[in-house]
Amino acid sequence: MASENEIVRIAVDAMGGDHAPSEVVRGAVQFASTGQGYVLLVGDPEALQVELSQYDSSRLPIRVIPSEGVIHEGEQPALALRQKPKASVLISTGLVKRGMADACVTIGSTGAAMAAAAVILGLAKGVERPALGGPVVGIAAETCILDLGANVDCRPRQLLSFGAIGDIFARSFWGHDNPRVALLSVGAEAGKGNRQVSETTEMFEQSGLNFIGNIEANDVPKGAAEVVVCDGFVGNIVMKLTEGLGQRLTERLRESLNDKLPEADLDALLDDFYGINNVVETRGGGPLLGVNGVSVVGHGSASADAVERAIGMAKLAVDIDFIPRMNRQLEELESRLEA
Amino acid sequence: MASENEIVRIAVDAMGGDHAPSEVVRGAVQFASTGQGYVLLVGDPEALQVELSQYDSSRLPIRVIPSEGVIHEGEQPALALRQKPKASVLISTGLVKRGMADACVTIGSTGAAMAAAAVILGLAKGVERPALGGPVVGIAAETCILDLGANVDCRPRQLLSFGAIGDIFARSFWGHDNPRVALLSVGAEAGKGNRQVSETTEMFEQSGLNFIGNIEANDVPKGAAEVVVCDGFVGNIVMKLTEGLGQRLTERLRESLNDKLPEADLDALLDDFYGINNVVETRGGGPLLGVNGVSVVGHGSASADAVERAIGMAKLAVDIDFIPRMNRQLEELESRLEA
Repeated sequence: MASENEIVRIAVDAMGGDHAPSEVVRGAVQFASTGQGYVLLVGDPEALQVELSQYDSSRLPIRVIPSEGVIHEGEQPALALRQKPKASVLISTGLVKRGMADACVTIGSTGAAMAAAAVILGLAKGVERPALGGPVVGIAAETCILDLGANVDCRPRQLLSFGAIGDIFARSFWGHDNPRVALLSVGAEAGKGNRQVSETTEMFEQSGLNFIGNIEANDVPKGAAEVVVCDGFVGNIVMKLTEGLGQRLTERLRESLNDKLPEADLDALLDDFYGINNVVETRGGGPLLGVNGVSVVGHGSASADAVERAIGMAKLAVDIDFIPRMNRQLEELESRLEA
Repeated sequence: MASENEIVRIAVDAMGGDHAPSEVVRGAVQFASTGQGYVLLVGDPEALQVELSQYDSSRLPIRVIPSEGVIHEGEQPALALRQKPKASVLISTGLVKRGMADACVTIGSTGAAMAAAAVILGLAKGVERPALGGPVVGIAAETCILDLGANVDCRPRQLLSFGAIGDIFARSFWGHDNPRVALLSVGAEAGKGNRQVSETTEMFEQSGLNFIGNIEANDVPKGAAEVVVCDGFVGNIVMKLTEGLGQRLTERLRESLNDKLPEADLDALLDDFYGINNVVETRGGGPLLGVNGVSVVGHGSASADAVERAIGMAKLAVDIDFIPRMNRQLEELESRLEA
């Protein structure tokens, strides 16, 4: 955690992602140029020097930390972690654990980042696996939905952890005083829903969270709650459907409006429209939730600008004390449940 | 089933829905005026005569069938069925069972219509409960998603029935030769997904259906399959999220385009946009799936035009022999599974 006098140090996995290392290095250079923090660029030293030589980077707060190997999307994370102990994502995460960095960022394999965070940083109280969450339905910009796919089959206790983490997310990132927490279901009435929802409701009611009950999916875009809890199967479908609809509706709008608006107006409108439906891409990334340290995962196809935003997100998570606040919250939840 | 010489007879529950009986009667009059079929208008005779007297209906093919009582949205269906044995939805469904109507239509309680259909018409082979399905993601106009909320917790065998019913839906309503059937999941790769999906995949592979594997939610709006199978919890979330996003995005577009387009162009654009995102409302309704007879359920807030479309949907289901085709399909599936 950085005090006001300290500069935030962020370890960036420069080898992960579709356009690594070039776009990652460019994004890191952009971030470092703003003077907001110190970047530890983790990767193959020679490749990184080639990239860095393209910029006037010698006086920037960037340092190269060597790593060997990359874990690619699609590799089995636990296995890959053992086979490539010096992979960039492991070295980056290790820097956080050893106190040499305040946060780490990768746009590589989400599975590898999650496994590295769980093994190296450890999990918060009551959490079984790292979770993914954030404002993925962009038109409800301050609604954190979790889990988004890391935990496809969930027990009630896990869903409750998601609620508690989401509460802290909304408090610390958005400044909400008393975030409304809801379970995503198929009917707002108590008793409606599947087995999972009905088994979970009572636990939420006794959690001390500001639980407003069940909401239906049509209420999510209206911003009916700051925290929407669901298992990762459902959350992933919410995220991906929003993305897919956004893409197709943007195409449809372009066809409909093609000859009706000046090109610049049309482009601006469609950019806005695409952006609110593809938050995962435009937001840069989000922190893994439920792990004992800041580890931000961005979109694999991230451009330099998106990489810069992901690094900025990591800095923000450090600045607002996200991890200590989350840990306190989860410990309090645990004692309330035991009481 | 109607031969070419016979006129289709449709029983319409005139007492169900938010604007019953006035909008329902108006919709029935509109349908009857087209000469496409004979309407048996089921409800309180006095109330219906008052409504009918507003139209020049004496020579239209409409006949009033008396009923007593209405089952409202929110009533517990099984209980309500016992308490109100002459309720309009029961009388309408009974007319189909007794061969006095070829199909029935209600815009009242979906739960009551499902219970009435299951009890009175009976269920098709291998089906445990009626299912709801249809093209609810309107930008993929020929993708039937099911179940949409009737069956929130599903065993693999139920999901397989949904696949078989969806296959016949796509063949008979849209004329597809060999509909692609997919399981909705969180990753396209085999092995990805929750417990339910992994338990179901093998059964689909051996089903004889044109099973293309798992698809992710972002592929649904692209029309990646004609049949998308999921449990009713997930399907309801897909349907409602599409609806909610459509509403909010339409509002956002209206704000963005307000001063940029002539009003008539803007209205036409937004109508189109709203329509493709709110198929449940614009389509009129769809047949209950897996029951031994045509029972179409429309949206409770249906206008007269939507009621007319729902009656038209019922006529279409009769004309294309939907029920006999579905029954043959489900019997064949059952014998393949036993073999």
